[in-house]
Parts: sequence; C-alpha cells; structure tokens
Amino acid sequence: MRAVQVTEFGGPEVLRQVELPDPEPGEGQVLVDVTHAGVNYADTHQAENTYLAPSELPLVPGGEVAGRTGDGRRVVSLIDGGGYAQRAVADPARTYDIPDGVDELTALSFIVQGTTAWMLLRRNAHLRAGESVVVHAAAGGVGTIAVQLAKAWGAGRVIATASSQEKRDLARSLGADEAVDSRAENMTAALRAANGGERVDIVLDMTGGRVTDESLAALAPFGRLAFFGMASREQPKPVVLPTLLKHSTTVSGMWLPHAFTLPGNVFGEAMSELFELALAGDVRAISGGVFGLSEARAAHEALRSRGTTGKLVLDTSK
Amino acid sequence: MRAVQVTEFGGPEVLRQVELPDPEPGEGQVLVDVTHAGVNYADTHQAENTYLAPSELPLVPGGEVAGRTGDGRRVVSLIDGGGYAQRAVADPARTYDIPDGVDELTALSFIVQGTTAWMLLRRNAHLRAGESVVVHAAAGGVGTIAVQLAKAWGAGRVIATASSQEKRDLARSLGADEAVDSRAENMTAALRAANGGERVDIVLDMTGGRVTDESLAALAPFGRLAFFGMASREQPKPVVLPTLLKHSTTVSGMWLPHAFTLPGNVFGEAMSELFELALAGDVRAISGGVFGLSEARAAHEALRSRGTTGKLVLDTSK
Repeated sequence: MRAVQVTEFGGPEVLRQVELPDPEPGEGQVLVDVTHAGVNYADTHQAENTYLAPSELPLVPGGEVAGRTGDGRRVVSLIDGGGYAQRAVADPARTYDIPDGVDELTALSFIVQGTTAWMLLRRNAHLRAGESVVVHAAAGGVGTIAVQLAKAWGAGRVIATASSQEKRDLARSLGADEAVDSRAENMTAALRAANGGERVDIVLDMTGGRVTDESLAALAPFGRLAFFGMASREQPKPVVLPTLLKHSTTVSGMWLPHAFTLPGNVFGEAMSELFELALAGDVRAISGGVFGLSEARAAHEALRSRGTTGKLVLDTSK
Repeated sequence: MRAVQVTEFGGPEVLRQVELPDPEPGEGQVLVDVTHAGVNYADTHQAENTYLAPSELPLVPGGEVAGRTGDGRRVVSLIDGGGYAQRAVADPARTYDIPDGVDELTALSFIVQGTTAWMLLRRNAHLRAGESVVVHAAAGGVGTIAVQLAKAWGAGRVIATASSQEKRDLARSLGADEAVDSRAENMTAALRAANGGERVDIVLDMTGGRVTDESLAALAPFGRLAFFGMASREQPKPVVLPTLLKHSTTVSGMWLPHAFTLPGNVFGEAMSELFELALAGDVRAISGGVFGLSEARAAHEALRSRGTTGKLVLDTSK
C-alpha cells in the first residue's frame, strides 16, 4: 500500500511517500480501508517530536481515518498513528459508524476536533446558556466547530478571533457574533470591547504566549480559560495560584486521549451528539483542502502557515 | 454598644473591645440586633491587612452576623465588616431568614463557610456522582460542611485531611471515608493511598504551599483542584499551563463575594439548599467554640493556632 513515512524528525520535509506492506490487525483489532485521513495540528508536532506523547521512528503519522471495514461498514476511527496510508489498524472501541447523510469530511472533522470542542465546552468550561464564549483560532478545525457548538448550546455572545478578514468572515458565517483580529495589540482590551465592555465568561485557547496571558486577564468572575495547545509554540506566563482568587478564575488543560479514561462512554456520547447536530443542520464541517497522500508535505506546510481554515484531509486514492 | 475595634494592623493583640455609637443604616439598609457574630479565617487576614481586599482603619471586623431585625425576623446576614458588635448594618439582599428548627450557629456556619463549600463543589469542581473528593482542613469551618455536602451529593470516596487524630475522627463522623494526616511527608502518595492507589478527582484546598503542589500531582485525568485560601501563608509553585495537559487538569480560584456577580440568585440558592439539608439532617454545623465579644482576641488566637474545629462564634451578650 501507499503510505507517508517519517524516518527522521523535522518539519514538513520529513514526510515522504513510500510503499509499505499492509498493517496486520492484532487480536480484537480491525483493518480499515482508508479513503480519507485527517490531518491534525498534533501531526506536525509528532513529525518534529514536540508532541505531548514522544514519537518513535520510523512512523506513519495520522490519528484519524475514514473508510470501510471488511464487512462493509462506513466508519471513522481514532487511531494510534498510521493514518496517512491506504490501510490502517483500528480499535473497535474507538471506531464509529458514519450515519447516512454524513460525509467523510464531516466525520473526520468530528473524530478529534469536534470531540475536542465538545469536551472543552462540556467538561472543561461547563458552558451555561447565556455565557459569552471566546473561540481563538475560530477558523481552524476545532474553532469552526466550537463556534457552532457554543451557539447551538445557547451561548450568549460568541467572540471569534482569527488572523485574516476571510477567516473572521467564515467565523461570522458559522454564527460568531463578533470577530476580533487575533493580532490585536492588546487582546484583553479587544475581547472586552467585543463583549460590549464586559469581561468574558469562557475562552477556548490553543494559541499560548501573550494571547493566553491577555485572555486570562479578560475573564469575568468565575470565568474559565480552557487551554488545549500552543500553536504559537510560545509559553504563556506561569499562573500564580493566589491570583486566581482575584476574579475566581479557572484555568484548565485538556488532552483528548484522557476522555477515554473517564467513566462511561463520554467519547461515544460526544460523537453521537455531533452526528445528530450535523444531521439537524446545526453543525457543519468546513473543508480546509483535500490533498493527495503524495501531497502530505504540502498539507503540513499549509497547516503550519496558519493560513488554512477548517479541516484538512488526505485523499488516499491520490 | 459594645464592639471590637482594630486601630492598628497586626495579630490577635490588635483586637480591642470598645464602646461605639450604634451604626446608622443607610438608605435601603437594615439594622440587625446581633446575637452572634461569626469568626472567619478571613478576619485574621483583615486584622493584619493581608486579605484579598485591603482594609482601612479604624475597623470593626466581622462579616457574618445572626440576630433580629427591627420587625422581629430572625436572620443571618453577610455584611461588609462591622460584625463584631452588638448592632450591625446589613444589606437586605444579603440577609436571609433563618428557618424554624435551624439555630444561629448553623446559620452562621452556612453564611460564608457553607456557601463556600457549596460554590466550590458546584461551580468550581462540578462534582459528579461517584467522584473522589479530597477535603483539606476537613475539620474546619468549610471542611466540616464540604465533607457532608460531598457525601450528600453522591461523591464516591471522600478523603479528609486534618492535623490531629481528634480532627480526623470528627471528619470520619461527618461521613469521610478516609482521613489522612495533613502533615504527611508526601501528600501525593498519601492521597493516592487513601484512594485505593488511584488518582483523585477533586481537591478542595485552602492550605497553599507544598500541600497544594503535592495535591495537584495527585489528580486524575480531568481532575480539579479548587483553591480558596492560603492558611499556611506559603505560596504554592506557579502553574505552567502546558503541564495542565499532561492530566487534563483544572485549577480554579474562588473568592466568595464573586458569587454575587453571577446571574440569578446563586447565593440565595446555596443558602436555601443548605437550610434544607440541615432540616433534613444531612448537614450539621460543628461548634468550634462560643466566645464572648470581649474574648475576640482569644477566638483569633484559637483559629490561628489551627487547633480548632468547625465554626467559631462570638456571643455579643458576653
């Protein structure tokens, strides 16, 4: 089969298309004929070995695949790497049937980024109806869904941030009430201005650095900042705990694999609810570009340029 | 009227009983004939001007009073100081009728410490049934109620920490499943051992210093530490945000006055629910000692010695 392999760590240039033997499913695993593989920001960290979980070489990147199982089910699966390939091994417990009426792009946009938005709003921020929600990187994979989920769940004002007019227009078209330039000189002031002068209740942040510091400073009493990545690759300032008392502030981290350690089937609930919202027309996936397997490098370059919107996928037939 | 006044900042020695004119209620305010005033850890910070809100001299400490209004209602009130006195001015919006069958000690133990425990579990930690809850300083004003609330709301294992066998026995008698010595050399290991080797879901912490650091390190994925004071007067280590991703950790601060900035009548809801639980026999107040007004100094000394349990009150007739 064709696959994309990394044999040395680095930037997009280390992604190389190769011919590999089909992977062998272990006991209880299932082989998926991959039609589309999702590309995720985490993959760029994995390729350069700066991800939360360390990588081992050689590796085939990719944690999200859509395709068919041997018995003909159309599925989307969260996998432990090996997704940038024509076939991949999956765990049935992390494999979900794609309902009729939902396409592969949508399913792939839900399996990591949709569930991330769901977890952040439900389990980190505990969104209540009427609350203001800031979604940084609102035109991205998580952001596009978070904006729609927040609105569907009754958020008051949803404030999107993005780096270009086109991205801000996209966020507005998805339901954001306000859109702020992510390069604002003073993010605290910009967020408050976008919220009618008031402090904000919730911030979803995968930026890091100054954006995190200034967003924290914009929180209302009992406000919550959910931190789930550091796309700027810059550290925010450490948080001194007694300062959290000044505005009864909550800061939380979220790494999606931990969802599977929670009691019950939280991840499955998230997927079911996302599929229902998609079928009801309340949440839609935004395509950020379909690349061939042979173009994986270009997909990473595009993602790292921070110029893309929505969900990037690889079409394994190309 | 007799009152306790502070004319210079410092330790318990600055509390002096004096004769003062009755306070004059402003427009919309109500005068309370104080029978009992609550003593709170925050008062010791106020007397030495190390509280979150700066103090101005001269001051009459005390933010919690129980007594009667001019029209004969038996009330408990959260006030802006002036509580260590025979009469105090209150805001009707922060004054609650004490139901028949609830005594003044119980009402005073709810007005700050009970509502603090309620807010921490509901609005900071978002307790779910079955979760493990660590209550530090479990024999204290907040701790004694937090242990009982956590059990009443379906917590799994409740793990109390306290500095003496007597305090740990008290925590157990209130429903704690395990009781840990708060001077444990390694609090991370001690908490996990008390939880059957597992990491814990929730920690309520008003200690600071090493206890906070080691408690954070004991949290399970999606665990939450709610920080609401620093009785040790020692700073915990600053929290580096990306480290919160390692276990999807939440850290939150809580300062009770912010409850009044939330939409709806959150504080009133908390008081109603606490009174209902008291009448149902599910939550009871623990007396930490009744002191005369003239003994306010001794009350602060007792509280600062960290040898007390439950709620300390001043009887203004003495």
